[in-house]
Amino acid sequence: MANFTPTEKTKIRRKPDRGSYDRELIYRILDEAFVCHVAFISDGLPFVVPTNYVRVGDKLYLHGSTASRLMKTLASGAPFCLSVTLLDGIVLSPTATGHSVNYRSVVVMGKAEPVEGEAAKGRWATVRPPTEQELKGTMVLSVPLVEASAKVRTGFAVDDDEEYASPAWTGVLPMKWTAQAPVPDPRGNPEIPMPANILHYSRPQ
Amino acid sequence: MANFTPTEKTKIRRKPDRGSYDRELIYRILDEAFVCHVAFISDGLPFVVPTNYVRVGDKLYLHGSTASRLMKTLASGAPFCLSVTLLDGIVLSPTATGHSVNYRSVVVMGKAEPVEGEAAKGRWATVRPPTEQELKGTMVLSVPLVEASAKVRTGFAVDDDEEYASPAWTGVLPMKWTAQAPVPDPRGNPEIPMPANILHYSRPQ
Repeated sequence: MANFTPTEKTKIRRKPDRGSYDRELIYRILDEAFVCHVAFISDGLPFVVPTNYVRVGDKLYLHGSTASRLMKTLASGAPFCLSVTLLDGIVLSPTATGHSVNYRSVVVMGKAEPVEGEAAKGRWATVRPPTEQELKGTMVLSVPLVEASAKVRTGFAVDDDEEYASPAWTGVLPMKWTAQAPVPDPRGNPEIPMPANILHYSRPQ
Repeated sequence: MANFTPTEKTKIRRKPDRGSYDRELIYRILDEAFVCHVAFISDGLPFVVPTNYVRVGDKLYLHGSTASRLMKTLASGAPFCLSVTLLDGIVLSPTATGHSVNYRSVVVMGKAEPVEGEAAKGRWATVRPPTEQELKGTMVLSVPLVEASAKVRTGFAVDDDEEYASPAWTGVLPMKWTAQAPVPDPRGNPEIPMPANILHYSRPQ
């Protein structure tokens, strides 16, 4: 897979040593995360909205109500900026300014394209397929992954050795986003077994 | 504490039953989360950048390098939109369109104000205080919490009872963001005990 080419918009300017245009790394971060934040301009003001997405090949798919401002704005071809952030830990340093966080983040810029057709709008293995009305009320947008970059920080503080004479405890507090025990819906049929992919749910890593 | 007044910009338009302007709820979400996504406009394009923040009273504080585009843009008085999202679970429904996520999110809009003075720029209990040069390189912005709203979804799917004849397992897969065991910095002094607030770290809830 060819890596991304940095553009004026996706080039990492602050702390460029943390930046990457590696397609595999960017796809791993996108696949592990679950919520993205999409920024767009409406009436001359910036807005940011959290939403779910899925990556299939070299595209992200967003879906939402045809009535949502986010979906309407993106469907109009307006430029957007999408960010995904995985917070991996808190970095405790001997100095005030040396404190940091470990993270993996991705930024995607571009324009979205509306997706038409029932097959493209979902995967209907076990659930009731959508009605015509439900399909009409749902908009699916595809986001070609053309302009993207990642930024990653790992490891401990990077203060000079002499700073470690300080009385402050130093280290990393790792953070993780994990699934807890599934809770069956009281209205559900108790004879339907919990699927293994729910019981042992984890994000791809 | 007086609740927030919805404005043209913060009024919840999609699924207004999930919306809230309750100040206590909004502050709890802000205090539990750790990363926000800030949208701003630069050269006519929308950008979104993840960053840390802290709430003190009726203000959020952001900090960053004086060289960062985010900090420079916000310091200029440009409008921004800031979003914080806690993903609480995945909702499995008997129908394709009934699937959802449980979440608590906050949106803050407004303009930031630069903060001057060493005392306002940090808390120096155990770490080495910043040098003059470090202070000069760090910008702190305060964001008055004037325009803010929350959106919250909890519970199971809301499909009609007859949909539950479907063979799909239904329920909620709770998700949680948690601290793991702290990892001491190999360059740190092993005689400094790990502070209790690191050993038993949890976000306020």
